[in-house]
Amino acid sequence: MKELKERILKDGYIINEDILKVDSFINHQADPGLMKQIGEALAAHFKDKGVTKVVTIESSGIAPALMTALALEVPMVILKKEPSKVLNEGLLQTMVTSFTKGTSYELTLSKRFITEMDHVLIVDDFLANGEAATGAIRLLRMAHATVAGLGILIEKSFQPGREKLIEQGIDVYSLARISSLKDGAITFIPESE
Amino acid sequence: MKELKERILKDGYIINEDILKVDSFINHQADPGLMKQIGEALAAHFKDKGVTKVVTIESSGIAPALMTALALEVPMVILKKEPSKVLNEGLLQTMVTSFTKGTSYELTLSKRFITEMDHVLIVDDFLANGEAATGAIRLLRMAHATVAGLGILIEKSFQPGREKLIEQGIDVYSLARISSLKDGAITFIPESE
Repeated sequence: MKELKERILKDGYIINEDILKVDSFINHQADPGLMKQIGEALAAHFKDKGVTKVVTIESSGIAPALMTALALEVPMVILKKEPSKVLNEGLLQTMVTSFTKGTSYELTLSKRFITEMDHVLIVDDFLANGEAATGAIRLLRMAHATVAGLGILIEKSFQPGREKLIEQGIDVYSLARISSLKDGAITFIPESE
Repeated sequence: MKELKERILKDGYIINEDILKVDSFINHQADPGLMKQIGEALAAHFKDKGVTKVVTIESSGIAPALMTALALEVPMVILKKEPSKVLNEGLLQTMVTSFTKGTSYELTLSKRFITEMDHVLIVDDFLANGEAATGAIRLLRMAHATVAGLGILIEKSFQPGREKLIEQGIDVYSLARISSLKDGAITFIPESE
Protein backbone atom coordinates (compact mmCIF):
# COMPACT_ATOMS: atom_id res chain seq x y z
CA MET A 1 0.00 0.00 0.00
CA LYS A 2 1.65 3.12 -1.34
CA GLU A 3 0.42 5.61 1.31
CA LEU A 4 1.62 3.41 4.20
CA LYS A 5 5.04 2.78 2.67
CA GLU A 6 5.55 6.48 1.97
CA ARG A 7 4.60 7.27 5.56
CA ILE A 8 6.99 4.63 6.90
CA LEU A 9 9.82 6.16 4.86
CA LYS A 10 8.89 9.65 6.04
CA ASP A 11 8.14 9.04 9.75
CA GLY A 12 9.46 5.56 10.61
CA TYR A 13 12.54 5.47 12.80
CA ILE A 14 15.10 2.66 12.68
CA ILE A 15 16.14 1.69 16.22
CA ASN A 16 18.40 -1.15 15.07
CA GLU A 17 18.52 -3.85 12.36
CA ASP A 18 15.49 -5.55 13.90
CA ILE A 19 13.31 -2.74 15.23
CA LEU A 20 11.41 -0.03 13.39
CA LYS A 21 9.58 2.57 15.45
CA VAL A 22 6.31 3.90 14.01
CA ASP A 23 4.90 5.47 17.15
CA SER A 24 4.19 8.84 15.52
CA PHE A 25 1.46 7.49 13.19
CA ILE A 26 0.47 3.96 14.31
CA ASN A 27 1.30 2.95 17.90
CA HIS A 28 1.33 5.86 20.30
CA GLN A 29 0.01 8.62 18.06
CA ALA A 30 -2.28 7.38 15.27
CA ASP A 31 -3.30 9.10 12.04
CA PRO A 32 -7.07 8.43 11.72
CA GLY A 33 -7.17 9.18 7.98
CA LEU A 34 -4.34 6.72 7.30
CA MET A 35 -6.07 4.14 9.54
CA LYS A 36 -9.23 4.51 7.47
CA GLN A 37 -7.27 3.93 4.23
CA ILE A 38 -5.55 0.90 5.83
CA GLY A 39 -8.89 -0.53 6.94
CA GLU A 40 -10.33 -0.10 3.47
CA ALA A 41 -7.29 -1.74 1.85
CA LEU A 42 -7.45 -4.78 4.16
CA ALA A 43 -11.23 -5.03 3.71
CA ALA A 44 -10.86 -4.89 -0.09
CA HIS A 45 -8.42 -7.82 -0.03
CA PHE A 46 -10.61 -10.01 2.19
CA LYS A 47 -14.06 -8.86 1.03
CA ASP A 48 -14.99 -12.14 -0.71
CA LYS A 49 -13.75 -14.41 2.08
CA GLY A 50 -16.98 -14.53 4.09
CA VAL A 51 -15.47 -12.77 7.12
CA THR A 52 -17.93 -12.67 10.06
CA LYS A 53 -15.69 -10.91 12.62
CA VAL A 54 -12.44 -8.97 12.73
CA VAL A 55 -10.24 -9.90 15.69
CA THR A 56 -7.24 -7.99 17.00
CA ILE A 57 -4.86 -8.04 19.92
CA GLU A 58 -4.86 -5.12 22.33
CA SER A 59 -3.82 -2.47 21.95
CA SER A 60 -1.88 -1.35 18.82
CA GLY A 61 -4.08 -3.38 16.48
CA ILE A 62 -7.36 -1.81 17.62
CA ALA A 63 -7.33 1.27 15.39
CA PRO A 64 -6.68 -0.51 12.05
CA ALA A 65 -8.92 -3.45 13.04
CA LEU A 66 -11.82 -1.11 13.82
CA MET A 67 -11.53 0.55 10.41
CA THR A 68 -11.31 -2.85 8.68
CA ALA A 69 -14.40 -4.07 10.56
CA LEU A 70 -16.25 -0.86 9.66
CA ALA A 71 -15.49 -1.37 5.96
CA LEU A 72 -16.48 -5.07 6.11
CA GLU A 73 -19.60 -4.23 8.19
CA VAL A 74 -18.82 -6.86 10.84
CA PRO A 75 -18.08 -6.58 14.60
CA MET A 76 -14.54 -6.24 15.95
CA VAL A 77 -13.36 -8.38 18.87
CA ILE A 78 -10.35 -7.37 20.98
CA LEU A 79 -8.26 -10.22 22.42
CA LYS A 80 -7.18 -8.99 25.83
CA LYS A 81 -3.73 -9.39 27.35
CA GLU A 82 -4.22 -10.56 30.92
CA PRO A 83 -1.20 -10.68 33.21
CA SER A 84 -2.13 -13.99 34.83
CA LYS A 85 -4.57 -16.84 34.53
CA VAL A 86 -8.06 -15.60 35.25
CA LEU A 87 -10.25 -18.41 36.48
CA ASN A 88 -13.54 -18.04 34.70
CA GLU A 89 -15.26 -20.76 32.76
CA GLY A 90 -16.62 -18.28 30.22
CA LEU A 91 -13.09 -17.39 29.11
CA LEU A 92 -10.60 -19.00 26.74
CA GLN A 93 -6.92 -18.29 27.36
CA THR A 94 -3.58 -19.12 25.82
CA MET A 95 -0.07 -18.08 26.83
CA VAL A 96 1.88 -15.89 24.42
CA THR A 97 5.56 -15.10 24.88
CA SER A 98 7.07 -12.16 23.05
CA PHE A 99 10.76 -12.77 22.41
CA THR A 100 11.19 -9.17 21.23
CA LYS A 101 9.86 -7.71 24.46
CA GLY A 102 10.76 -10.57 26.80
CA THR A 103 7.23 -10.68 28.21
CA SER A 104 4.47 -13.26 28.55
CA TYR A 105 0.74 -12.80 28.84
CA GLU A 106 -2.50 -14.77 28.66
CA LEU A 107 -4.34 -13.87 25.49
CA THR A 108 -7.98 -13.89 26.57
CA LEU A 109 -11.31 -14.26 24.76
CA SER A 110 -14.84 -14.54 26.07
CA LYS A 111 -16.62 -17.56 24.56
CA ARG A 112 -19.65 -15.36 23.95
CA PHE A 113 -18.04 -13.41 21.12
CA ILE A 114 -16.48 -16.08 18.88
CA THR A 115 -18.23 -19.36 18.07
CA GLU A 116 -17.94 -22.24 15.61
CA MET A 117 -20.06 -20.16 13.21
CA ASP A 118 -17.33 -17.52 12.87
CA HIS A 119 -14.85 -17.06 10.03
CA VAL A 120 -12.37 -14.60 11.43
CA LEU A 121 -9.99 -12.06 9.94
CA ILE A 122 -7.13 -11.26 12.32
CA VAL A 123 -5.68 -7.73 12.01
CA ASP A 124 -2.50 -6.57 13.72
CA ASP A 125 0.03 -3.78 13.29
CA PHE A 126 3.25 -5.83 13.04
CA LEU A 127 4.22 -9.33 11.92
CA ALA A 128 7.71 -10.33 13.04
CA ASN A 129 8.16 -13.73 14.68
CA GLY A 130 4.45 -14.45 14.57
CA GLU A 131 4.00 -15.17 18.28
CA ALA A 132 0.94 -12.97 18.76
CA ALA A 133 -0.75 -14.13 15.53
CA THR A 134 -0.05 -17.78 16.36
CA GLY A 135 -1.55 -17.25 19.82
CA ALA A 136 -4.63 -15.59 18.31
CA ILE A 137 -5.09 -18.50 15.88
CA ARG A 138 -4.73 -21.01 18.75
CA LEU A 139 -7.39 -19.13 20.71
CA LEU A 140 -9.76 -18.96 17.71
CA ARG A 141 -9.37 -22.72 17.21
CA MET A 142 -10.18 -23.28 20.91
CA ALA A 143 -13.41 -21.38 20.12
CA HIS A 144 -13.95 -23.75 17.12
CA ALA A 145 -13.88 -20.79 14.71
CA THR A 146 -12.11 -20.81 11.34
CA VAL A 147 -9.50 -18.27 10.22
CA ALA A 148 -10.22 -16.25 7.07
CA GLY A 149 -6.76 -14.70 7.06
CA LEU A 150 -4.28 -12.37 8.68
CA GLY A 151 -4.14 -8.69 7.68
CA ILE A 152 -0.94 -6.91 8.71
CA LEU A 153 0.22 -3.30 8.42
CA ILE A 154 3.97 -3.85 8.58
CA GLU A 155 5.65 -7.18 8.01
CA LYS A 156 9.31 -7.63 8.90
CA SER A 157 9.89 -10.18 6.16
CA PHE A 158 13.42 -10.95 7.41
CA GLN A 159 11.87 -12.54 10.50
CA PRO A 160 10.13 -15.93 10.30
CA GLY A 161 6.49 -15.03 11.20
CA ARG A 162 5.05 -14.99 7.68
CA GLU A 163 6.62 -18.31 6.72
CA LYS A 164 5.43 -20.06 9.88
CA LEU A 165 1.85 -18.86 9.29
CA ILE A 166 1.80 -19.73 5.59
CA GLU A 167 2.99 -23.25 6.50
CA GLN A 168 -0.17 -23.50 8.64
CA GLY A 169 -2.26 -22.57 5.60
CA ILE A 170 -3.03 -19.01 6.73
CA ASP A 171 -3.66 -16.33 4.06
CA VAL A 172 -1.23 -13.59 5.13
CA TYR A 173 -1.71 -10.17 3.55
CA SER A 174 0.67 -7.37 4.56
CA LEU A 175 0.36 -3.79 3.38
CA ALA A 176 4.09 -3.07 3.72
CA ARG A 177 6.72 -5.81 3.62
CA ILE A 178 10.17 -4.84 4.83
CA SER A 179 13.06 -6.97 3.60
CA SER A 180 15.76 -5.16 5.54
CA LEU A 181 16.48 -2.45 8.11
CA LYS A 182 20.25 -2.73 7.65
CA ASP A 183 22.65 0.19 7.14
CA GLY A 184 20.10 2.70 8.38
CA ALA A 185 17.77 2.12 5.38
CA ILE A 186 14.23 0.75 5.12
CA THR A 187 13.98 -1.62 2.12
CA PHE A 188 10.60 -2.91 0.96
CA ILE A 189 9.75 -6.06 -0.99
CA PRO A 190 8.04 -4.93 -4.23
CA GLU A 191 4.27 -5.51 -4.22
CA SER A 192 4.38 -7.94 -7.17
CA GLU A 193 6.52 -10.49 -5.26
CA MET B 1 -27.31 9.97 22.41
CA LYS B 2 -30.34 7.93 21.57
CA GLU B 3 -28.60 5.06 19.72
CA LEU B 4 -26.13 4.48 22.55
CA LYS B 5 -28.80 4.53 25.26
CA GLU B 6 -30.97 2.09 23.33
CA ARG B 7 -28.00 -0.22 22.89
CA ILE B 8 -27.15 -0.02 26.59
CA LEU B 9 -30.73 -0.99 27.47
CA LYS B 10 -30.66 -3.84 24.94
CA ASP B 11 -27.18 -5.29 25.50
CA GLY B 12 -25.84 -3.81 28.75
CA TYR B 13 -25.63 -6.19 31.69
CA ILE B 14 -25.93 -5.10 35.31
CA ILE B 15 -23.33 -6.87 37.44
CA ASN B 16 -24.29 -5.02 40.64
CA GLU B 17 -25.45 -1.56 41.76
CA ASP B 18 -22.09 -0.10 40.73
CA ILE B 19 -21.02 -2.06 37.65
CA LEU B 20 -22.53 -2.18 34.16
CA LYS B 21 -21.00 -4.57 31.65
CA VAL B 22 -20.98 -3.41 28.02
CA ASP B 23 -18.43 -5.88 26.66
CA SER B 24 -20.62 -7.04 23.76
CA PHE B 25 -20.57 -3.68 21.94
CA ILE B 26 -17.89 -1.42 23.50
CA ASN B 27 -15.12 -3.13 25.50
CA HIS B 28 -14.37 -6.64 24.29
CA GLN B 29 -16.50 -6.80 21.18
CA ALA B 30 -17.07 -3.40 19.53
CA ASP B 31 -19.71 -2.33 17.02
CA PRO B 32 -17.83 -0.24 14.41
CA GLY B 33 -20.99 1.47 13.11
CA LEU B 34 -21.99 2.55 16.61
CA MET B 35 -18.40 3.72 17.27
CA LYS B 36 -18.59 5.88 14.14
CA GLN B 37 -21.86 7.46 15.33
CA ILE B 38 -20.33 8.04 18.78
CA GLY B 39 -17.24 9.65 17.26
CA GLU B 40 -19.41 11.94 15.15
CA ALA B 41 -21.56 12.92 18.15
CA LEU B 42 -18.52 13.78 20.31
CA ALA B 43 -16.89 15.65 17.41
CA ALA B 44 -20.09 17.65 16.81
CA HIS B 45 -20.16 18.78 20.45
CA PHE B 46 -16.50 19.86 20.52
CA LYS B 47 -16.13 21.04 16.90
CA ASP B 48 -15.79 24.76 17.74
CA LYS B 49 -13.37 24.29 20.64
CA GLY B 50 -10.14 24.39 18.62
CA VAL B 51 -9.19 20.79 19.40
CA THR B 52 -5.71 19.91 18.05
CA LYS B 53 -5.50 16.30 19.30
CA VAL B 54 -7.77 13.62 20.72
CA VAL B 55 -6.20 11.71 23.61
CA THR B 56 -7.41 8.43 25.10
CA ILE B 57 -6.28 5.84 27.62
CA GLU B 58 -5.52 2.36 26.39
CA SER B 59 -7.35 0.28 25.55
CA SER B 60 -11.18 0.58 25.73
CA GLY B 61 -11.16 4.24 24.72
CA ILE B 62 -9.20 3.72 21.50
CA ALA B 63 -12.14 2.81 19.22
CA PRO B 64 -14.38 5.81 20.06
CA ALA B 65 -11.37 8.16 20.27
CA LEU B 66 -10.21 7.13 16.80
CA MET B 67 -13.64 7.84 15.34
CA THR B 68 -13.80 11.21 17.13
CA ALA B 69 -10.33 12.14 15.84
CA LEU B 70 -11.34 11.08 12.32
CA ALA B 71 -14.41 13.32 12.44
CA LEU B 72 -12.39 16.25 13.86
CA GLU B 73 -9.53 15.61 11.38
CA VAL B 74 -6.86 15.64 14.10
CA PRO B 75 -4.40 12.96 15.30
CA MET B 76 -5.24 10.56 18.15
CA VAL B 77 -2.74 9.93 20.95
CA ILE B 78 -2.99 6.83 23.16
CA LEU B 79 -1.82 7.22 26.76
CA LYS B 80 -0.17 3.92 27.61
CA LYS B 81 -0.55 2.02 30.86
CA GLU B 82 2.92 0.95 31.92
CA PRO B 83 3.26 -1.45 34.86
CA SER B 84 6.23 0.34 36.43
CA LYS B 85 8.29 3.45 36.12
CA VAL B 86 10.13 3.43 32.83
CA LEU B 87 13.24 5.56 33.04
CA ASN B 88 13.35 7.58 29.86
CA GLU B 89 13.71 11.32 29.72
CA GLY B 90 11.48 11.55 26.66
CA LEU B 91 8.50 10.24 28.66
CA LEU B 92 6.03 11.84 31.02
CA GLN B 93 4.40 9.58 33.61
CA THR B 94 1.86 9.82 36.37
CA MET B 95 0.51 7.15 38.72
CA VAL B 96 -3.18 6.27 38.43
CA THR B 97 -4.94 4.05 40.96
CA SER B 98 -8.24 2.45 40.00
CA PHE B 99 -10.34 1.88 43.12
CA THR B 100 -12.84 -0.17 41.08
CA LYS B 101 -10.21 -2.60 39.86
CA GLY B 102 -7.75 -2.26 42.74
CA THR B 103 -4.86 -1.69 40.36
CA SER B 104 -2.23 0.99 39.79
CA TYR B 105 -0.34 1.88 36.67
CA GLU B 106 1.89 4.61 35.27
CA LEU B 107 -0.01 6.55 32.62
CA THR B 108 2.66 7.29 30.03
CA LEU B 109 3.04 9.87 27.27
CA SER B 110 5.93 10.64 24.96
CA LYS B 111 6.77 14.35 25.03
CA ARG B 112 6.99 14.30 21.23
CA PHE B 113 3.23 13.98 20.76
CA ILE B 114 1.72 16.60 23.06
CA THR B 115 3.21 20.07 23.45
CA GLU B 116 2.26 23.47 24.85
CA MET B 117 0.65 24.20 21.46
CA ASP B 118 -2.00 21.49 21.96
CA HIS B 119 -5.61 21.92 23.04
CA VAL B 120 -6.68 18.38 23.82
CA LEU B 121 -10.00 16.54 23.85
CA ILE B 122 -9.86 13.48 26.12
CA VAL B 123 -12.16 10.59 25.10
CA ASP B 124 -12.86 7.54 27.25
CA ASP B 125 -15.52 4.86 27.49
CA PHE B 126 -16.55 5.25 31.16
CA LEU B 127 -16.56 8.04 33.73
CA ALA B 128 -17.06 6.78 37.29
CA ASN B 129 -14.72 8.08 40.00
CA GLY B 130 -12.68 10.05 37.48
CA GLU B 131 -9.30 8.54 38.36
CA ALA B 132 -8.23 7.85 34.78
CA ALA B 133 -9.47 11.21 33.46
CA THR B 134 -7.78 13.08 36.34
CA GLY B 135 -4.54 11.23 35.58
CA ALA B 136 -4.82 12.10 31.89
CA ILE B 137 -5.37 15.78 32.73
CA ARG B 138 -2.37 15.75 35.10
CA LEU B 139 -0.22 14.26 32.33
CA LEU B 140 -1.44 16.80 29.75
CA ARG B 141 -0.60 19.63 32.16
CA MET B 142 2.88 18.14 32.64
CA ALA B 143 3.18 18.48 28.84
CA HIS B 144 2.00 22.14 29.19
CA ALA B 145 -1.04 21.45 26.98
CA THR B 146 -4.54 22.77 27.65
CA VAL B 147 -7.68 20.64 27.95
CA ALA B 148 -10.55 21.31 25.54
CA GLY B 149 -12.85 18.89 27.31
CA LEU B 150 -13.71 15.33 28.21
CA GLY B 151 -15.94 13.24 25.94
CA ILE B 152 -17.43 10.16 27.60
CA LEU B 153 -19.58 7.33 26.31
CA ILE B 154 -21.13 6.19 29.60
CA GLU B 155 -21.16 8.27 32.76
CA LYS B 156 -22.11 6.68 36.06
CA SER B 157 -23.57 9.89 37.43
CA PHE B 158 -24.08 8.36 40.90
CA GLN B 159 -20.29 8.27 41.29
CA PRO B 160 -18.28 11.48 41.88
CA GLY B 161 -16.12 11.67 38.71
CA ARG B 162 -18.16 14.26 36.83
CA GLU B 163 -18.43 16.60 39.80
CA LYS B 164 -14.71 16.43 40.57
CA LEU B 165 -13.84 17.29 36.96
CA ILE B 166 -16.36 20.11 36.64
CA GLU B 167 -14.93 21.63 39.84
CA GLN B 168 -11.59 21.75 37.98
CA GLY B 169 -13.25 23.67 35.15
CA ILE B 170 -13.35 20.77 32.69
CA ASP B 171 -16.13 20.67 30.05
CA VAL B 172 -17.53 17.15 30.56
CA TYR B 173 -19.84 15.83 27.83
CA SER B 174 -21.30 12.33 28.27
CA LEU B 175 -23.42 10.59 25.63
CA ALA B 176 -25.27 8.45 28.19
CA ARG B 177 -25.64 9.48 31.84
CA ILE B 178 -26.78 6.76 34.22
CA SER B 179 -28.37 7.91 37.46
CA SER B 180 -28.88 4.43 38.91
CA LEU B 181 -28.25 0.71 38.41
CA LYS B 182 -30.39 -0.22 41.42
CA ASP B 183 -33.09 -2.91 41.46
CA GLY B 184 -31.80 -4.47 38.24
CA ALA B 185 -32.77 -1.42 36.17
CA ILE B 186 -30.70 1.05 34.16
CA THR B 187 -31.99 4.59 34.72
CA PHE B 188 -30.75 7.50 32.58
CA ILE B 189 -30.64 11.21 33.38
CA PRO B 190 -32.75 12.97 30.70
CA GLU B 191 -30.62 14.81 28.12
CA SER B 192 -32.04 18.23 29.00
CA GLU B 193 -30.68 18.09 32.57
